[in-house]
Amino acid sequence: MHEGIDILVHEVGPRDGLQSIETVFPTEAKLDWIRAAAAAGVPQIQVGSFVRADLLPQMADSADVVRQSIDIPGLTVSALVPNLKGAQNAITAGAHQVGVVMSVSEAHNKSNVNRTVDESLEGFRQIVEYRNEADPDRKTVISGGLATSFGCTISGSVPVRDVMKRAEQLLELGADRLNVADTVGFANPKQVKDLFEELYRTVGKDVPVGAHFHDTRGMGLANAFAALEAGVRELDSCLGGLGGCPYAPGASGNVVTEDLVFMLEAMGLRTGIDLDALLEVRESMEKHLKGEPTQGTFVKAGPPLGFVPATAA
Amino acid sequence: MHEGIDILVHEVGPRDGLQSIETVFPTEAKLDWIRAAAAAGVPQIQVGSFVRADLLPQMADSADVVRQSIDIPGLTVSALVPNLKGAQNAITAGAHQVGVVMSVSEAHNKSNVNRTVDESLEGFRQIVEYRNEADPDRKTVISGGLATSFGCTISGSVPVRDVMKRAEQLLELGADRLNVADTVGFANPKQVKDLFEELYRTVGKDVPVGAHFHDTRGMGLANAFAALEAGVRELDSCLGGLGGCPYAPGASGNVVTEDLVFMLEAMGLRTGIDLDALLEVRESMEKHLKGEPTQGTFVKAGPPLGFVPATAA
Repeated sequence: MHEGIDILVHEVGPRDGLQSIETVFPTEAKLDWIRAAAAAGVPQIQVGSFVRADLLPQMADSADVVRQSIDIPGLTVSALVPNLKGAQNAITAGAHQVGVVMSVSEAHNKSNVNRTVDESLEGFRQIVEYRNEADPDRKTVISGGLATSFGCTISGSVPVRDVMKRAEQLLELGADRLNVADTVGFANPKQVKDLFEELYRTVGKDVPVGAHFHDTRGMGLANAFAALEAGVRELDSCLGGLGGCPYAPGASGNVVTEDLVFMLEAMGLRTGIDLDALLEVRESMEKHLKGEPTQGTFVKAGPPLGFVPATAA
Repeated sequence: MHEGIDILVHEVGPRDGLQSIETVFPTEAKLDWIRAAAAAGVPQIQVGSFVRADLLPQMADSADVVRQSIDIPGLTVSALVPNLKGAQNAITAGAHQVGVVMSVSEAHNKSNVNRTVDESLEGFRQIVEYRNEADPDRKTVISGGLATSFGCTISGSVPVRDVMKRAEQLLELGADRLNVADTVGFANPKQVKDLFEELYRTVGKDVPVGAHFHDTRGMGLANAFAALEAGVRELDSCLGGLGGCPYAPGASGNVVTEDLVFMLEAMGLRTGIDLDALLEVRESMEKHLKGEPTQGTFVKAGPPLGFVPATAA
């Protein structure tokens, strides 16, 4: 955890946001966003995804973006990878953290990466092995991502015991941390609190665990609060809730970074982020969008009278 | 509490929603809404406000609406009143519950009803006295409302001890229940949980307590969840989040009823409300709006695959 903050807000907009919209941001526009967000105090940013460029042209420059981001003072640079090749490229480019994706739902994993979950676990093993050889000091953190942990658009509900089983397997294979995702916006706050409490009972309180929520059914912040109640201290979010239409099934926006930061700061939890500066980053980022919508309430409502952010207190 | 439900959803749209918009609903349109909502299982509806008709023409027919609602099977009819005269009219019309308004913030109370809080308490005492004489069986429930309990647009933060003091005074004067309101949309979930926990410590677990939230800063559902965590079992909300522009200071919409009901039912808490029928009520209600906006995510996203509402389980 970065010093002087209580909750780590992990900005995933340059990856999850940009990969879900039509507009392709030029590399320089991504870097402007990343530099400005870091200057506003954002401690960690997922800057890209190492997928095939023909499948996701928005992410084709990810290696370049990582290379140009890793020396920004105070910033942890993360990248998403679907397989060993992506992980090799991300680690070679110098990413501080590599997030490896896997769905707990067999049907979703098959549809997403055309593998069984066990095959994805074998891929994860190879990624850790590669990291341990290429990076003996293990400076690059490997995050094991558990997508569809709260439900699946193909198979409906996902058993909690499946999430626990995959979490344990990822840790046995060498994951440094876990990221538990409501990939398709199905979660409710009771489910979130129960699942994270069960997860901490299963893997112990010392494993760093992040949570990733979408706001599809208006419960993004409620789920974030529920995760905090269970002990989670790292939350993904996306500036402006970028990620396209919040109501198309499976394509809804992430929790809005500035709304999340406001909620945390209002609750007395330091994020290290300056909200005014963050709104300026949002404004700059929006200039590159070609009419695609952003979300958020804080940008419109502003802070309540007398608000003192925890970070400034 | 009504039988067979875990959480009482108190629909305040025909009062809080309609009084905040330009459109004046004809009496018959209000009654259509109220009857259809009751048929969908909504257990309690605030059908009007007994204020001066020249100040709020939208509420001029409140006595008539109450009289025509009180025999709807299974429905508890509530009305808001600002003073003794309003309470007399509401009780005479037959309201099952009368909500008396008072702000914890002196500045807000002065601005809203031109009284000190102590003067409002004296008014409350007279209302209880009137009810006890006019209705010796005390069939009409008197709800003591604590507005601006989480902050005030005029004076900023509101001390928790002030909320506790006024809550105790209302109960000493004969309030049958309390309603704690985030009138201006300042609350965050930690504050909500802390305040309700403190309130139950102060007044005891047996006092029925309702909570009223606005969604000004996207935290309506998060605050509702936090209130549930503290033990609250009665929540106000508004169909379609009616109540006009959610971003004008002091005029933002209530928590959206259908989003709240979905959250509760998804968490396994029975509301007694049929969500499909509720969306039909929303559609009918919207036809009377003259271009004024509604809010809500459930109406667009629908239920997740495999969703079974607690009420139907």
